[in-house]
Amino acid sequence: MSTLSKEEIERRLEQLDGWEYVDGALETSFEFKDFKDAFSVMTRIAFECEAQNHHPDWSNVYNSLNIRLNTHDANGVTEKDFKLAKSIEEIIESE
Amino acid sequence: MSTLSKEEIERRLEQLDGWEYVDGALETSFEFKDFKDAFSVMTRIAFECEAQNHHPDWSNVYNSLNIRLNTHDANGVTEKDFKLAKSIEEIIESE
Repeated sequence: MSTLSKEEIERRLEQLDGWEYVDGALETSFEFKDFKDAFSVMTRIAFECEAQNHHPDWSNVYNSLNIRLNTHDANGVTEKDFKLAKSIEEIIESE
Repeated sequence: MSTLSKEEIERRLEQLDGWEYVDGALETSFEFKDFKDAFSVMTRIAFECEAQNHHPDWSNVYNSLNIRLNTHDANGVTEKDFKLAKSIEEIIESE
């Protein structure tokens, strides 16, 4: 899978809500009511990641969640990252 | 809850396996077989955190998990961190 150019990444980011291109990855952060809510959403995301066989670099502190997506094998951002970003957005919007 | 001194922290760390005192927190890292195994363990830890009402600063990339524990309210490491560290150790050893 080939990496996307910076221009292509910026163009596609316009179709997503709240994601940025930071240090070579698509990045976003969310805040939830509490830890339980944050981890519940993480669990839903985890199943989707497994289904897509693509995994985030993510961190959680209590009610906050930070997610970074890139494609290690390709050493950049690919279609796989945008597909997963869109799925994550849909999971969070459905809350 | 009062913070523990550096000496007290170092003394207690000897009773744990693989934890270090780094930048004001108890820290450890684990590697699992794959993402599914890592997230399964995270889920068991999450339930224990909720039960103890104490939560980690943690991050995951595929099969690796990094955990940092300190007590934000007390601005340091307290008994609560050692209690949770011990529980996390038991969860991981039971795998």
